[in-house]
Amino acid sequence: MAADLNEIVRYIEKNSDRYLQELFEFLRIPSISTDPERKQDVRKAAEFVADQLRKASMQRVEVFPTDGHPIVYGERVESKNKPTVLIYGHYDVQPVDPVNLWETGPFEPTIRNGELYARGAADDKGQIFIHFKSAEAFVETRQALPVNLKYLIEGEEEVGSSHLDEFIEKNRDLLKADVVVISDTAMFARGIPSICYGLRGLVYFQIDVRGPRQDLHSGTFGGTIANPAFVLAQLLAAMKDEKGRVTLPGFYDDVRNLTERERREFAALPFAEPAYKKELGVAELSGEEGFSPLERLWARPTFEVNGLLSGFTGEGAKTVLPATAMAKVSMRLVPDQQPEKIERLFEAHLQSITPQSVQLKVTRMHGGKPWVASLDHPALLAAANALEKGFGRRPVFQREGGSIPVVATFAERLKIPSVLMGIGLPDENAHAPNEKLDLGNFFGGIRSAAYFLEEFSRRAA
Amino acid sequence: MAADLNEIVRYIEKNSDRYLQELFEFLRIPSISTDPERKQDVRKAAEFVADQLRKASMQRVEVFPTDGHPIVYGERVESKNKPTVLIYGHYDVQPVDPVNLWETGPFEPTIRNGELYARGAADDKGQIFIHFKSAEAFVETRQALPVNLKYLIEGEEEVGSSHLDEFIEKNRDLLKADVVVISDTAMFARGIPSICYGLRGLVYFQIDVRGPRQDLHSGTFGGTIANPAFVLAQLLAAMKDEKGRVTLPGFYDDVRNLTERERREFAALPFAEPAYKKELGVAELSGEEGFSPLERLWARPTFEVNGLLSGFTGEGAKTVLPATAMAKVSMRLVPDQQPEKIERLFEAHLQSITPQSVQLKVTRMHGGKPWVASLDHPALLAAANALEKGFGRRPVFQREGGSIPVVATFAERLKIPSVLMGIGLPDENAHAPNEKLDLGNFFGGIRSAAYFLEEFSRRAA
Repeated sequence: MAADLNEIVRYIEKNSDRYLQELFEFLRIPSISTDPERKQDVRKAAEFVADQLRKASMQRVEVFPTDGHPIVYGERVESKNKPTVLIYGHYDVQPVDPVNLWETGPFEPTIRNGELYARGAADDKGQIFIHFKSAEAFVETRQALPVNLKYLIEGEEEVGSSHLDEFIEKNRDLLKADVVVISDTAMFARGIPSICYGLRGLVYFQIDVRGPRQDLHSGTFGGTIANPAFVLAQLLAAMKDEKGRVTLPGFYDDVRNLTERERREFAALPFAEPAYKKELGVAELSGEEGFSPLERLWARPTFEVNGLLSGFTGEGAKTVLPATAMAKVSMRLVPDQQPEKIERLFEAHLQSITPQSVQLKVTRMHGGKPWVASLDHPALLAAANALEKGFGRRPVFQREGGSIPVVATFAERLKIPSVLMGIGLPDENAHAPNEKLDLGNFFGGIRSAAYFLEEFSRRAA
Repeated sequence: MAADLNEIVRYIEKNSDRYLQELFEFLRIPSISTDPERKQDVRKAAEFVADQLRKASMQRVEVFPTDGHPIVYGERVESKNKPTVLIYGHYDVQPVDPVNLWETGPFEPTIRNGELYARGAADDKGQIFIHFKSAEAFVETRQALPVNLKYLIEGEEEVGSSHLDEFIEKNRDLLKADVVVISDTAMFARGIPSICYGLRGLVYFQIDVRGPRQDLHSGTFGGTIANPAFVLAQLLAAMKDEKGRVTLPGFYDDVRNLTERERREFAALPFAEPAYKKELGVAELSGEEGFSPLERLWARPTFEVNGLLSGFTGEGAKTVLPATAMAKVSMRLVPDQQPEKIERLFEAHLQSITPQSVQLKVTRMHGGKPWVASLDHPALLAAANALEKGFGRRPVFQREGGSIPVVATFAERLKIPSVLMGIGLPDENAHAPNEKLDLGNFFGGIRSAAYFLEEFSRRAA
């Protein structure tokens, strides 16, 4: 088998229009996993994935039901002597509100200036799609793959992968592999292919503060009873100090410090603060004292308020003392913080600082462990070569501020290393209006995914 | 003219069913002044008031347009030698959300256990109605009133009486009177007729905090930029200290302290903290240290959060770093705080404590001056006699935590004293779901309103 993949690259080029048409079809399915009314659409997206795996000549394709949304599995075994690559990704997408801020409909894929706009374009439909097409190109061209290939594509990533761990636990043999490849992250910047070797974890809560039995007139009663919206503001404000540090006792106990090498490498990356501020539309950055922006993003934990709701929020004024106040909050975690421990600490701390004049309810929504890989792992070196060939430029090693909890699951439960070769961009608007994917990166991604199979087959042999 | 009003009281009794039917009709009009879509309904309520004034044999009735909702005026002049009583009230009502908490529709008046349930039953349609019917009963029975009578009934009380001051200024002659009577407050407790001699003022703001250009992924960006919802929580939490005192510099400078006599009289009122807590459904009271609950309610200023909105507030979890966060906040003021001064202090202070990493916008919504009357004024003594005759029990003198800005306007611009003889109850749910009015108080109110005309005609003669 030839080491260069010229014929495969040509096949990809020749079929690029069809690839886009098929991806459009995928993106038109509104598979919002958090919305109970979209259950059938999520199911439809799973079936679409199964069809794609069949097109990629997988020998076995199965849609496994769960108590939530289904998990799609596919495999093609070439030979027991070949190494096995497991592709993980997800076909569910984030909600689309505020929908009025989208320039074109979130489920009406549209190309503008070389970018494909749609919910899921980058996160993660567009990115798993490159792995469907790299396999298809290989088999159509050479009638075989250089590795055994498996796919595990879930539909609950955006809601905490509720049923994935259980599925992995129950199907350890089925999922046996030498490496997991995941494309669900962003490149460091446009034109800089990147490998992600670290992820933050997550804990997410809903906080409900209840005061009086019902909404009251703020004049007739104000001054004698606690205002739940004010108490909520106090609880939230108390979570960080003036240096931007989270005040939760014990929060930093297990935080692993960056090595000097990592700090140097982060500092060498072309991070331009003025451009970053301009892109986000903020006059000043903010964050934990003593750390650079990249360090804050990749290696420091955070506390964020994700949502607030209380009392009167319409137009005009209503002099109401609200009965309840709600916040959604989350913390990004870094190695070696443990979500379960942070959850316990947070709940206990919040209870301890809540006054008796209100009732507090803290609900755990979902969580995920942080993860960091060794920079010298052979799978990472194979990925570096593949990206160099696919994009024509040596990739950088970076971390990512987001969370992909399953990476920690693969490492801990199946002892399989993960390679994160994401082809999104930092401004791709994942989780926001006008999500998009660069088409150059999409095709570079398909090429790189094909090269990876080849590179890994030789390194793991 | 006989000093006892037996025949009038009998007339009121005989017509009680019809009175209720007419009040029902009034309450069915959804005259929510803050809702632009209810403009026609607000207009309809104004016309209803005009019809009632004609029924009450006013010689002149006029619906004055304003740039907002109309003002209804009515008058009956008996003689230049008689004193003139001006009735002020409002026909607009509060919004009804959350509407799902109403046991019966807010605009479907329903009687349960001697209480009339409907939005506006107490605030203020039911209470102005007593003054329509007391006049009607007088004229139907005696063909004359013991005083000259005027009515000023507006449709913007719940949105800050935006056009009332201008109307009063332009119609000083029309509104000339010896006393203003207002029924828009609550009795101290069931069975205790009350005269209110003090009101708190109000300033109300919307606060908008803007961070990044749009909602962002809280993992990909969290830790490097300010979170508007968190900053908003900080700003709000910073407004009160651990003793429940408002921290705004200069806030207490003009606060008039209670006299020893007032503190003694407040302390003598039958305020039962356990019952109060039980009724409101709170385990503990809260408020400014060093003051009793009644002092906090009636004579101390407050800071309240009336509404909060930011980011993701639906079911489930969305890891969003919101672009904006909004709060509605208000402060109740006491004599001699000046709304305009407090507004300036608040805006300047908020700007000064807001970090450069976000943009702050503070919008003034509406305000009103606090007010306090002399306990020895003849009009108050006439009202005390009237309530004693109407309810069979000597009234107490109290203050009220709410705001009726027009009372300060009458005092300052027209030099007319006000008498506040409200017949609502503290648990009447004004501004909340299931607003109600006690029917016994309704009819006691009509009788007292009739007695007041008689009492005042003799005292002012």
